[in-house]
Amino acid sequence: MAGGEPTRIMIGVNESTIKGYPHPSISSRGAFDWILQKIVRSNTSGFKLLFLHVQVPDEDGFNDMDSMYASPEDFKNMTHRDRIRGIHLLEYFVNRCHEIGVACEAWIKKGDPKEVICHEVKRVQPDLLVVGSRGLGPFQRVFVGTVSEFCQKHAECPVISIKRRADETPQDPVDD
Amino acid sequence: MAGGEPTRIMIGVNESTIKGYPHPSISSRGAFDWILQKIVRSNTSGFKLLFLHVQVPDEDGFNDMDSMYASPEDFKNMTHRDRIRGIHLLEYFVNRCHEIGVACEAWIKKGDPKEVICHEVKRVQPDLLVVGSRGLGPFQRVFVGTVSEFCQKHAECPVISIKRRADETPQDPVDD
Repeated sequence: MAGGEPTRIMIGVNESTIKGYPHPSISSRGAFDWILQKIVRSNTSGFKLLFLHVQVPDEDGFNDMDSMYASPEDFKNMTHRDRIRGIHLLEYFVNRCHEIGVACEAWIKKGDPKEVICHEVKRVQPDLLVVGSRGLGPFQRVFVGTVSEFCQKHAECPVISIKRRADETPQDPVDD
Repeated sequence: MAGGEPTRIMIGVNESTIKGYPHPSISSRGAFDWILQKIVRSNTSGFKLLFLHVQVPDEDGFNDMDSMYASPEDFKNMTHRDRIRGIHLLEYFVNRCHEIGVACEAWIKKGDPKEVICHEVKRVQPDLLVVGSRGLGPFQRVFVGTVSEFCQKHAECPVISIKRRADETPQDPVDD
């Protein structure tokens, strides 16, 4: 049981709905901290963390209402800026892993988070998928949907959903 | 992150529907092996495993059709025999933990497994609950129910459900 390939844990992370990029959401940060404290512990060489950030494309193609989009180049720049923002988000997690000495990888995909996460699980085949969850009640869930429930059902690997701590829940629990 | 209290992992275990006591079910054994290989790894002092076995009382009070129950003492003996069987099941897990050097506790409760497990999570407050799952399809689930789905929704701690490997699934997937 000593040695061998490290346990590969994929973690879905996203930006804060309150503070925006580059700040991670409360539930992403909570899931990451939980994994470090409860699973990795002092065994830093036994694990590899795989951070996946899924960016949701705006339906109308406009991500920033302050900007003008008048040419194809404008859209290219916008996409470029999205990538930069995503990278800044991932930097938070990758930097912390380097400080602690845990191996990691991080990447960005576009699409519907729940579907992209399950697709990436199929492709990358981690040992475990971890997703943060806002811990919404049944009434709120009808409107916002939950990525964690979908992944619990459809991901082809074991899944842990980590709920936010009560003392970290913002005034509007849909925020994160 | 080194040292501190060990991570306490509760594991719900039951007997094999094919071989009966004292043999653990395929999914219980699978969940246990997965925890050792993927989470505990070489860090045996970082974890404590808590084995909970829930025995389902027969509705009519008869657990064994070969026996006669003619007096209150007969029923007491029956209950006693149930306890002995449960202890033999738990011995499998406790013995393996001792071989490996992982701290553990084990106990038996009576009742509806999904409700007792969630109640014990509330009482014992583990860091993580692990349940094995037969990985049944939606049609089979309607009839047999699944403990893992219920615990995912109602247990007051993070939950991992470990599905049986395809090559370990018996001819009738309801068996375990």
